[in-house]
Formats: sequence, structure tokens, C-alpha cells
Amino acid sequence: MPECPLGERLALLTDLYQLTMAACYFDQDMHDEATFSLFIRKYPAHRGYFVAAGLPEALHYLETLRFKEEDLEYLEATGLFKPRFLDYLKTVRFTGQVHALPEGTIFFKDEPILEVSAPILEAQLAETFIINAVSLQTMIATKASRAVYAAQGRPLIDFSLRRTQGVDAGLKVARASYLVGFLGSSNVLAGKVYGLPIFGTMAHSFITSFPQEIDAFRVFCRNFPNLTTLLIDTYDNLSGARNAVQVAREMAGRGERLGFVRLDSGDMAAISQEVRQLLDDQGLDYVRILASGGFDEFKIAQVLAAGARIDSFAVGTKMGVSDDAPYFDIAYKLVKYAGRPVMKLSTGKVTLVDQKQVHRYYEAAGRMARDTIALRHEALPGGSPLLRPVMAGGQITRPLPSLNECRNFFQGEFARLPEEYKALQDPPFYPVSLSPGLRKLQSRVEQELQHRLRRES
Amino acid sequence: MPECPLGERLALLTDLYQLTMAACYFDQDMHDEATFSLFIRKYPAHRGYFVAAGLPEALHYLETLRFKEEDLEYLEATGLFKPRFLDYLKTVRFTGQVHALPEGTIFFKDEPILEVSAPILEAQLAETFIINAVSLQTMIATKASRAVYAAQGRPLIDFSLRRTQGVDAGLKVARASYLVGFLGSSNVLAGKVYGLPIFGTMAHSFITSFPQEIDAFRVFCRNFPNLTTLLIDTYDNLSGARNAVQVAREMAGRGERLGFVRLDSGDMAAISQEVRQLLDDQGLDYVRILASGGFDEFKIAQVLAAGARIDSFAVGTKMGVSDDAPYFDIAYKLVKYAGRPVMKLSTGKVTLVDQKQVHRYYEAAGRMARDTIALRHEALPGGSPLLRPVMAGGQITRPLPSLNECRNFFQGEFARLPEEYKALQDPPFYPVSLSPGLRKLQSRVEQELQHRLRRES
Repeated sequence: MPECPLGERLALLTDLYQLTMAACYFDQDMHDEATFSLFIRKYPAHRGYFVAAGLPEALHYLETLRFKEEDLEYLEATGLFKPRFLDYLKTVRFTGQVHALPEGTIFFKDEPILEVSAPILEAQLAETFIINAVSLQTMIATKASRAVYAAQGRPLIDFSLRRTQGVDAGLKVARASYLVGFLGSSNVLAGKVYGLPIFGTMAHSFITSFPQEIDAFRVFCRNFPNLTTLLIDTYDNLSGARNAVQVAREMAGRGERLGFVRLDSGDMAAISQEVRQLLDDQGLDYVRILASGGFDEFKIAQVLAAGARIDSFAVGTKMGVSDDAPYFDIAYKLVKYAGRPVMKLSTGKVTLVDQKQVHRYYEAAGRMARDTIALRHEALPGGSPLLRPVMAGGQITRPLPSLNECRNFFQGEFARLPEEYKALQDPPFYPVSLSPGLRKLQSRVEQELQHRLRRES
Repeated sequence: MPECPLGERLALLTDLYQLTMAACYFDQDMHDEATFSLFIRKYPAHRGYFVAAGLPEALHYLETLRFKEEDLEYLEATGLFKPRFLDYLKTVRFTGQVHALPEGTIFFKDEPILEVSAPILEAQLAETFIINAVSLQTMIATKASRAVYAAQGRPLIDFSLRRTQGVDAGLKVARASYLVGFLGSSNVLAGKVYGLPIFGTMAHSFITSFPQEIDAFRVFCRNFPNLTTLLIDTYDNLSGARNAVQVAREMAGRGERLGFVRLDSGDMAAISQEVRQLLDDQGLDYVRILASGGFDEFKIAQVLAAGARIDSFAVGTKMGVSDDAPYFDIAYKLVKYAGRPVMKLSTGKVTLVDQKQVHRYYEAAGRMARDTIALRHEALPGGSPLLRPVMAGGQITRPLPSLNECRNFFQGEFARLPEEYKALQDPPFYPVSLSPGLRKLQSRVEQELQHRLRRES
């Protein structure tokens, strides 16, 4: 099964300019190899690192890129394109190579997440989809990893589907949050597509559809005795908790155990303490407390600091849209064409030229110390190269790791990231430098451009 | 062609609890009619109104809701559900009715966007998808309408696809922004699916792939003489503008006219004035200036206030993710079951009971004056009812208006909205009251619940 049920044959899911530029390249017989580099230009507020995610979807897109008959008919009907170019599109395939950070890699601003090398027309066509796919999952994986860190070992579940920005995002959020350590998601289709664990509770509507709250509780636990989480705030948290206690006793009489009660509104620290006390007083210390309602890393940290007795968090909307940073300043830039390193000079947006590699240096204890961005084939002693070849000749070169393997890989990565960069507020900048080779080439290309500009003006 | 190529037969794109609650309803033979109401609980910062959008997708979902064989196999494999319930799911269809605001309607907080009435199991199952579909397009239509307002008649184009939260969002953003007056989108698939106009310029990579900027300009305008927008900031805005002037003269010599130059970085007010001057000095007053780069309603208003000479804006990421309000506090709540009006009391989240209607009152000049939320069948003199029956027996009752009809409808609506509610910063609250009938019923149900709570505790 493909990783993304929505990502197949979306050749037209692109910006019009990709096709008009392609037509120009075709017209000019420009088929030389181009390298594009995907990277994040700056940290949004409070981010001290990023987590690479979304690679399988990007590669799957490249492997299956095809213009269908109906796509070509639509393009023809626009009246913009010459028949010869449309004939060419019929047979166009992605034939290039990709170097990329494995999913779950921790990386920093300016570092290439992936580099695509292919005939310029093919590499350019892929821009829109690649940026979209990688930026969404990288943004969510980064946000979700902060929630996992804030929860200090308490399990987290993704409840965001209803308010993600569309259904594709709903699937990707479930996947990316699982990648960085969430226990699972409420999203059933994500469970089916990605094989991740699914979880659920009950809605307020379920409670209010019964004459009494306790009737709703009883029906649910009789149907799902091993999956029962009772939502107790529909009318009042404490009276809800007393009804849950009653039902838990009835369950115990049948040899069953109530799993969780769920808080969804009010002062979480205070209410969780009262509910914990009430449960403990009744000998129900095995019943755990799940909390939902506006949680992200900031609110998790805040309620735990306030002494909340919460065992698990359902994390929804704010994680699912990356509320405090709903986009990343990510770019896919041409860095080399026909053997010539290239860059743009636009105000504040200078790019790093040529094909690159990121080398990571560790302290003796295994903690990450610093990174160096280098030319791809530059010899640098002592560092571990992070970008790996993942596609050649338009084909994935070896089977991609499974989602669970990536999840384990991320866990190892995160353990090596020093604590200060994990700070939820204002983390420091991790040290990233440029290699001597890259600095020299960068400066040469920039000088040549400035020189030409002066000559022309 | 369906309105949404990604929205079909996504029965599993739901929260697990929808299915476990459904299993409970099925187990209890609870098939009475339930009404759920979809509404926004509060205004995000700076929003004074909302624009209803996303209805066709929600209705299409309801009409085509089916559990496929492979869906049922997955649910069976979870081990959670009884065979009798899975057999039932095989044949389940949405058979209910929907009342809704037509797309493009301006509405306010607490007002129902739509109300679904159906056997409770069917109406509950649809919750996740309906919230997701309506909230995304409503949020984007609202944000985009503010950009249109800020641009004071200048055409806007959606350039957000690369950074929307997923590919589904990319399509919906193109659609919702067109609905409220954008001229079109760069998104080719949206052009094909929704029949909206598509536009494009060129990328920095196109410029840098040629030895000289002017070579890139020349190739593009020879291939697309009627569609040429020259991106002039790759190396330096003014030297780019001088190259554009040269190319525009060459085009004029061939009887062609350069359409636009595009600014993408730097101080937009200052640069646009310099570029305008340069173009005018060369007799190129017909060449217009398009600006892109971080625009939303706030930046558009700011650069225009600073005297920018910009004719058209490409509006991307910040509109496409609704940057300053990336989600709405939207809820789908049970308001009536088996003839009984119901509500929840959770702290700060009280819901309005029963089936409702919104009545709008206008001033003599046609300007909107105030709204009243009433019981659906309550007689209220003088107001115009906003919610209309759109689905009965699980079928759309009459053909939905086309996207262009909705676009015209919105334009009329927006013209009737008094200026103060359109303010980009801190608009006042539009007056919305509750009818006598609704107030009375609301208070009776709330008292009965409070009474029962006191009795139980």
C-alpha cells in the first residue's frame, strides 16, 4: 500500500509557473542537470531544532509522477501550451536522484533536508509538491516532539482530525505525531493506512443523548469494557466523577477495570487533583486521568507545573495546525545548473550554492555538539554525514525504513540532542558552521554576481 | 465531476469514538432522530464576521458515505466491534436532512452554519468530516475576504499551494479564496477541478538557470507573450527592472505588451515607487506591478498606506494557513434527541438547544442591522431567515449554486455588511440576540439540568 492514499498521480497539483517554465526549458533544449536544495530559512518563535518528516510521500510522488490524458486535455484547453510540449509531458518521468535526511533526523536552519538532482525540467516540476509534503510533516513532527518532551513520559494521543487544515493534513498529522513518540491517534483512516494504534473516548453528545449521564457510562462500558474512557465534564466534573466511580465499582463486580476518566474543561490542575482524590478515596487508584481541551506543549507544561494529576493527554487542534507556527519559511532553491553553482541575491534571502552535505560532530558522551554544512564531496574529518542517497534514476534505491523504525530512530536522535535546545521558550541557536570549501565557493559566486551587476548598471 | 476529488468514500476518515458510540447506539436500538448544530463559539483576534464555505463538500460526503469491504476488514481486525454491528455498517447510509447557510453567507459567532437531523448514529458518524470540511473553507474564506477588502479593488491571486497544510488544503484554499473575490490561483489542479482561472509568473530558479537574467526574460516572453510577468528581484530590483524595460521594448517592437513585473523582496513601498517611476519614464505606463512575499490583509494595508504603487498582489502562505488564526473554535453539538432538547453545561461551553433558524434584519438602505437566533419554527416578523433546507432523505434537494454564483452572492452580502465590522483590527461585535422562544426554552432546559444535578449530588 502506498504511504499516502491522496498523493498519487497529482501531476497537476502544482503551480502554473512550473509548467510555463518547463515549456521554456523544453523550447530551449535545456535538459542539463539541475540540483535543487530544500531547507528552512529561519526558526519560528521558540523552535530550537526541526525534525525531518514527509520524505516517503515526496519520493512516492517522484516515482509515480505522470500526466494523465485528462490532465493534458485540461492543459491543452488553457490554450497556453504548444502541442509539441504537451506531447512531451505525456512521456515525462522523474529520472533523477535524491539525497535526503532520513525521517526522524534532527536538523537545523539552512541545512538541506533534501537535494534533488535531475534534468532541470523534472526537478523544477516537483517543487510545489515536495515543499508541501515535507514542510507539513516536518512542521507537525517538530511541534509534536515538543509536546512529547513537555509531557515527561506521559502518553499523548492525537485528537486533531476535526480541526486539521483538510483531510490530507489529518492523515499526515497522525503520522508525524506518531513518528516523534505519540502513542497513537483517534484517526481511524490513519490507523488503517499507517498501521498506527487508534484510540477513542466518547463525545458530549453521547452523554446528552441519554436521559442521565450514568446511563451513557453504563452502556459504553458494557460495549467496550477494555476501552472505556468516561468523559465526566458534560454537566459537572465532580458529579461526573461520582458517576464514574459508581460505574467503576459495577465494572469491578464483573471482573472488569475502568481505564480512564477524561477531563475536557475547567481548571485542569485543580479538577484533576480533586478527581484523583475522589478516585483514590474509593480504592480506584488504577483508574487513570486523561485530559483534553486546547493542549499543546505550552499548556501541558503549564498544568503539570501547577500540580495537575494527569496521566495522559489528548492533544488536538493546537498541535494539529502547529498553532504558534502554522508554516515554516521553507524554500526549494536551484543551487547548481549544468555544472555551474548558482544563487540568488534577493534581499535577505541569499542561498547556499552547489550540492551539499551536513556533517555532525558529537561529544565523547554521544551528545550532539555542532554541525558543519559542506560541499557534498568535500573531505571533512571526524563528522558523521547526515544526507544519504535515497533515489537514483527516478527509483527509490532501497526500501525505506518503516514508520516504527523511523520512530525508534527519532527517539535515539532526540536523546542525543542537548537539553538546552529542547527548551519550550527561547531555546539558544545550535552551532552550525559552513565548511572552508563551501565558504570559499559561496564567496566566489557572490563576488562574480556582484561584479556582473556593477558592470551592467 | 465531484467538487472534491479527495472527499469520496472516506468513511474511515473519522475519530474512533464516532464508531464506538455508533456501536453503542446500535446495541441499544437508539435510532431516534438527533439534530446536531455546527457553529463557531468565539471570534479569533481581529475577526468581526465569518464567511460560510465548504458546504458542497460536506453534502457530497453525506450523499456518498459508504463503508467499503476493506474498511470493514480493517475494523474487524481491530477486534473492537461485534460482527452484527459490522454487518450493519455495510449497509449504513446517511438518510437525514440538512439545513444550512448558503456558501458565501456572512454570519457571526453562535449562529448555526448548518444543522443535521438524522437517526443519531448517522448524524454522529458525520461529525469529524463535517467539522473539518466546513471549518477549513470557512476559515480561509474569512481570511481571504479580509485581504480582498484591504486591497481596495486591486486583483489578488492565490499563491499558497506550496505551504498550505497538505494537498487537500491547497485545493480548498484556492476554492475558498476565489469564492470571496480572488481573481484566481496558481494551483493548476484547482483550476481543473473548480474551473477557476489560473495564473503564474516565474521562479528565481528560472532566472538563475540562465547565464544572464535578461536571457531568462527573453525566453519566457517569447514563449508566453500574453502571460508575461517578469520577476525582477533575483539579483537586484532596479537592475532587474532595467532588464524588464529592455525586454518590454523588444516586445513592443513585435507588437506585444509586457504584462507585469513582479517584486518579491525588500521594502515594497519604496521599491514599487522607484520601479513605477522607471517604467513610466520609459513610456511603459501599461506595464503593471505585481507584488508577492508574505502578504496578507495586514501587510497589504500597510504597504498601501505607505504609498506603494502596486497594481496586484500574489497572496500566499499567510492567507493559505490563516496565519494569525489557524483554526476556529468550531463545534458540532447535539441539540435535540428523540424530541427532547438537549445541551451540555461544561465550563464556558454552553450550547444553544433545539433546531434553530437565524433571522437577519436590515436597515432601510439595505445594510445589515442585527441578527436573531430563534427556534426553527418560531414565527418572527420582519427578518429574513438565513438557513435553508439543502438535503432531505440523504439527497441534495436541489442543484447547489455554482462556485461563480456563490462568488456573486458573497459580493452582494459583503456590500451589505456595514464598514465597521470589516475593520482589520479589533472590529466591534455585530449585534446577535436570542429570540424569546429560544431564550425561554434554553433557560428551562438549563434549570432542569441544574435541578437534576443538585438532586444527584
